[in-house]
Amino acid sequence: MTAHRRIVIIIDGYSTPFVAKTAISILRYRTDDVVAVIDQQAAGQTAQQLLNAGGDIPIVEALSAVNDADALYVGIAPPGGKLPDEWRPLILEALRRKLDVVSGLHDFLTDDEEYVAAAAQSGAMLIDVRRNRHKSTAKRHLFRPGNLRIHSVGHDCSVGKMVTTLEIQRGLAAAGHDAKFLATGQTGIMISGEGVPIDCVVADFVNGAAEELVQQNEQHEFVLIEGQGSISHPSFSAVTLGLLHGCAPDGLVFCYEAGREQVKGLDNVDIPPLADQMQAYESVANLRHPCKIIGIAVNTRNLTAEEADAELFRAEVKFGLPACDVYRTGADKLVQACLVLRAEVIAK
Amino acid sequence: MTAHRRIVIIIDGYSTPFVAKTAISILRYRTDDVVAVIDQQAAGQTAQQLLNAGGDIPIVEALSAVNDADALYVGIAPPGGKLPDEWRPLILEALRRKLDVVSGLHDFLTDDEEYVAAAAQSGAMLIDVRRNRHKSTAKRHLFRPGNLRIHSVGHDCSVGKMVTTLEIQRGLAAAGHDAKFLATGQTGIMISGEGVPIDCVVADFVNGAAEELVQQNEQHEFVLIEGQGSISHPSFSAVTLGLLHGCAPDGLVFCYEAGREQVKGLDNVDIPPLADQMQAYESVANLRHPCKIIGIAVNTRNLTAEEADAELFRAEVKFGLPACDVYRTGADKLVQACLVLRAEVIAK
Repeated sequence: MTAHRRIVIIIDGYSTPFVAKTAISILRYRTDDVVAVIDQQAAGQTAQQLLNAGGDIPIVEALSAVNDADALYVGIAPPGGKLPDEWRPLILEALRRKLDVVSGLHDFLTDDEEYVAAAAQSGAMLIDVRRNRHKSTAKRHLFRPGNLRIHSVGHDCSVGKMVTTLEIQRGLAAAGHDAKFLATGQTGIMISGEGVPIDCVVADFVNGAAEELVQQNEQHEFVLIEGQGSISHPSFSAVTLGLLHGCAPDGLVFCYEAGREQVKGLDNVDIPPLADQMQAYESVANLRHPCKIIGIAVNTRNLTAEEADAELFRAEVKFGLPACDVYRTGADKLVQACLVLRAEVIAK
Repeated sequence: MTAHRRIVIIIDGYSTPFVAKTAISILRYRTDDVVAVIDQQAAGQTAQQLLNAGGDIPIVEALSAVNDADALYVGIAPPGGKLPDEWRPLILEALRRKLDVVSGLHDFLTDDEEYVAAAAQSGAMLIDVRRNRHKSTAKRHLFRPGNLRIHSVGHDCSVGKMVTTLEIQRGLAAAGHDAKFLATGQTGIMISGEGVPIDCVVADFVNGAAEELVQQNEQHEFVLIEGQGSISHPSFSAVTLGLLHGCAPDGLVFCYEAGREQVKGLDNVDIPPLADQMQAYESVANLRHPCKIIGIAVNTRNLTAEEADAELFRAEVKFGLPACDVYRTGADKLVQACLVLRAEVIAK
């Protein structure tokens, strides 16, 4: 996937930020690889205007408006994970034009006979990033001692774990360190070109799939492993813990969204206190490998600048840990926390 | 499955207790429904002599030695989960005789064309208890207030969680309470005729599958939910936590095997201290629903009677909780602990 250099993203009709979050992240982290976004209603705007990411990349009405594309990326993650029926003609047009089609939905392109036939005829590839065949249990691998593992965890879904992880990786790399981002969800895989769609792995093999992903990358000085769900999430905690134990982190970055007190997508379900969650994360992580929370990433998207500063200050005082909003303040404090942890681990 | 009244169990060539544990549990809990066990090497012995369960039920050499059977149960759980190739003629013979064939292996009978054809011809059923199609996420159901949920958890796999759960259910029922055992593994499903093979559910749906199982049974006064794996298990903790959060227990029974200090099936991996595990279980359980450990089930199979008494005494003093070995002492103390918890919950 990282070979794609002229990507068209389709979000047609689904431009609300929560649903188009895959598109937004690709625009943010692969800006130079994207040539257009398809959304009929917003055609003529820029990506920046519509989605607050991607600068001058144009929103276009149809695939025919784009010359010389090499791939079509499905930019949405709708509840239910179905590909909109009305997109079929456009996907077939892309395949006829020999564009690879990349999707992170639960509905697999490669299960659709018409798509498979069209791709076979033109030589285009169908890439379902959520398809997986992981069937091995974790062996409790002893990771290479020089490999430091940092894992983002959260108080809920969709609070910025992937972005936090990417920003820390960028910060470590900018400081001259060998740091690798490891994706565990569809958007992260589309951005980095590899990873494991951990939420689709069969339960017995979740820990194993995470362990294998890290093991394949333990030559790096740092690996930054994208987290999923939450240890307190009534629906997805199995994914969260399997991932946490599989990657056996040395350090955790705890991510939360300021002001979010109920579980996203569930009615009237309170999120447990942050301190209880942090204690639970450290408790279960240490059953596998010595580990502590080294910093906090606060998502302050619903706060004013002044409120955001106050929230970060409060978090630092309350938990005694460095806190950033990686969008507003950058990730420097978290990068620093990774380097401090590394020094501590080496000193042991 | 509970309609089967003349079951033949096949373990042919795999009579070691760890591999034949499915057979042993069926012999123990469905004694009256079993007519024979097939194992060529041990033919002529009784089930009690060979497997320490099942009394006078005969071990026979071949299916032809049994008249009037109604089902063939695969009695083994070999590492890897494959059905032995050499059993094929016998399984086909059973299907021709219109015996239902029941298997809990990962290798599905219903994926085998020859078996499917033979079953179709005779009208026999192929039952893969591990096949599942759970595809819904947990909704954080509010369970009926009068329904008390007790869940067995452990320090490792294969320490007696299923047996403990069954014995507590029997004890509660014998005391006149409406108590239902809920199976979450293949052997439990074969014994009780229903349940969810939780380790084969896709990660995103593990919590949901457990929640649905309990929800379908919340009319009962007590549900006793069989646990799986361990919160500290490097390979299977995803299963354990998804199940724990899905069933939202009021009380936990903590099961461990005396003397087992390393993870079964993994080389040289120490099991974390029991106190740390118990703390972790309570910590994560309370993120979902108020919950505490109410008793301890010690598996003392490797101890003398005297050592076992001492171990139970130590556990009670150390953790301040009632402790039983359900094989040696019965489950009375744990049954009592369930009733005390019920009184506490009602009083709130």
